[in-house]
Amino acid sequence: MAITVVGSVAYDSIETPAGRRERCLGGAATYFSLAASFFCDVRVIAVVGEDFGPEQEAVFRKRKIDTRGIEHAPGKSFFWEGSYLENINEAKTHNTELNVFASFEPKIPAAYRDSDFLFLANIDPVLQKRVRDAMPDVKLTAGDTMNYWIRDHRKALEQVLKGLDILLINDTEAKMIGGSSNLVQAAHAVMALGPRLLVIKHGEYGATLFHGSAEKIGDRTFRAPALPLEQVVDPTGAGDSFAGGFFGYLASQKELTPGAFRRAMFYGSVMGSFACERFGTERLQQLSRAEIDARFQIFRELTHLD
Amino acid sequence: MAITVVGSVAYDSIETPAGRRERCLGGAATYFSLAASFFCDVRVIAVVGEDFGPEQEAVFRKRKIDTRGIEHAPGKSFFWEGSYLENINEAKTHNTELNVFASFEPKIPAAYRDSDFLFLANIDPVLQKRVRDAMPDVKLTAGDTMNYWIRDHRKALEQVLKGLDILLINDTEAKMIGGSSNLVQAAHAVMALGPRLLVIKHGEYGATLFHGSAEKIGDRTFRAPALPLEQVVDPTGAGDSFAGGFFGYLASQKELTPGAFRRAMFYGSVMGSFACERFGTERLQQLSRAEIDARFQIFRELTHLD
Repeated sequence: MAITVVGSVAYDSIETPAGRRERCLGGAATYFSLAASFFCDVRVIAVVGEDFGPEQEAVFRKRKIDTRGIEHAPGKSFFWEGSYLENINEAKTHNTELNVFASFEPKIPAAYRDSDFLFLANIDPVLQKRVRDAMPDVKLTAGDTMNYWIRDHRKALEQVLKGLDILLINDTEAKMIGGSSNLVQAAHAVMALGPRLLVIKHGEYGATLFHGSAEKIGDRTFRAPALPLEQVVDPTGAGDSFAGGFFGYLASQKELTPGAFRRAMFYGSVMGSFACERFGTERLQQLSRAEIDARFQIFRELTHLD
Repeated sequence: MAITVVGSVAYDSIETPAGRRERCLGGAATYFSLAASFFCDVRVIAVVGEDFGPEQEAVFRKRKIDTRGIEHAPGKSFFWEGSYLENINEAKTHNTELNVFASFEPKIPAAYRDSDFLFLANIDPVLQKRVRDAMPDVKLTAGDTMNYWIRDHRKALEQVLKGLDILLINDTEAKMIGGSSNLVQAAHAVMALGPRLLVIKHGEYGATLFHGSAEKIGDRTFRAPALPLEQVVDPTGAGDSFAGGFFGYLASQKELTPGAFRRAMFYGSVMGSFACERFGTERLQQLSRAEIDARFQIFRELTHLD
């Protein structure tokens, strides 16, 4: 099955305790696509500027990602500059330039129309909804968002949530949307807004999958660990890589059984752990499916009693 | 097998978003003993004041905990007052009165001498070391500590660490002792000081067991989850209850296989989750082994792929 993803393809300048990189290829849709491409066909909808050339295009092509939905516009690509010097788990944003993204109007190529899976990466919820509405026949829709949209664009975001099967967010975002400092209460409040499945990412502590309005804890909740890493080189894109592994694995399955969702949580964590090992998308570009499955086994050993 | 535990038996006044309790029975040795008593024989070494009467004694007796090592001294018992109003995961201390604990000299009853397991709960490391030295024949020694001893009594603490097989601490304590903001690096630095096994507790995110100086992650590391709780009534003693479940389960095993340590991590998390459900030791006092094993299964479902 194929996933269509809409989101940012961008350049990032990143500083972490491990060093600094200028203008490396980034953006939520980039990380998501690379991670998902190890499991299924991926088709991207985004906009880039004149600074996006054959070298960047080749990164997608090498992973057989369909880039016909990447629009080339006059001007510069979306740019983000941030650092993780004080806290490796929390980015400090120094600069955000929307550039060509400011007037982005997503256009869906005809060849993308038969996608069964749709991922709405973190962009303006108005655009997320537009893409969702334009693809009414998808079987499963997942999405992401961030604090800025939750705080200042709540109504537009709630329209998106109504159309989502699965929402993937982090602890802080879940507590903001759900209006509770208790994660379980927040999860229930978020699911009441639409998504019947909720993945809350806990950074270095893994992630929890909530299903429906849990009557009994344990029956409906699943926790995947994160890998204890001796060095987090660059956490940028770890959440998007998680989403790509999670949703990509689901798209590769014939049937969406409860077991498939559990394994998808593990593959999400696996892809997130790889993303942190090098700057930007470096590690995802060099990865093999064999390495992914070997790490899946490590995650199993890390958590299973037998 | 029997565990001897040395630590505080105290009174706590606690305020959480769920309410307030005045002077409920508490102290690290109390939580530890109650939790461990579901798995093995437990013998306590502590000191209490004249405010500790038959009612408190009965809490231990009901769980068949040996209290012959609880010394009764003139004056008042150790008293702690704290709240969790802003952050349910972090106690704010309002008052600490050492009282009879200020001049505590641990005495080990002859009947305790054949204990195979020793737990040094969070008290002055000088006292921890004295008890450790007085029981040279124990097979396995575990211990706990806190930020105060790490910061201001480092040398005495390092003497204790040399004599420990297992140290159980939380993230902040591990990073303080290990001198690194990265948990894996901190863990290695802590283990270099003595303990060959290290349990780092992550609060609502579970706990990680580190073995030796991990060459390859996954071979030597194990993560147990915590239960996503809809309401944390009172987190006081959750860490000590974890330690009691963990060490108590180990003491109940004929052989300390890697599998026994994994199950012990789960039982630790199970006992920690129960402790949070009511104020003070209320939930541990009412618990049954059947409830414990039922929750163990929930923890398995929460984490296992199949």
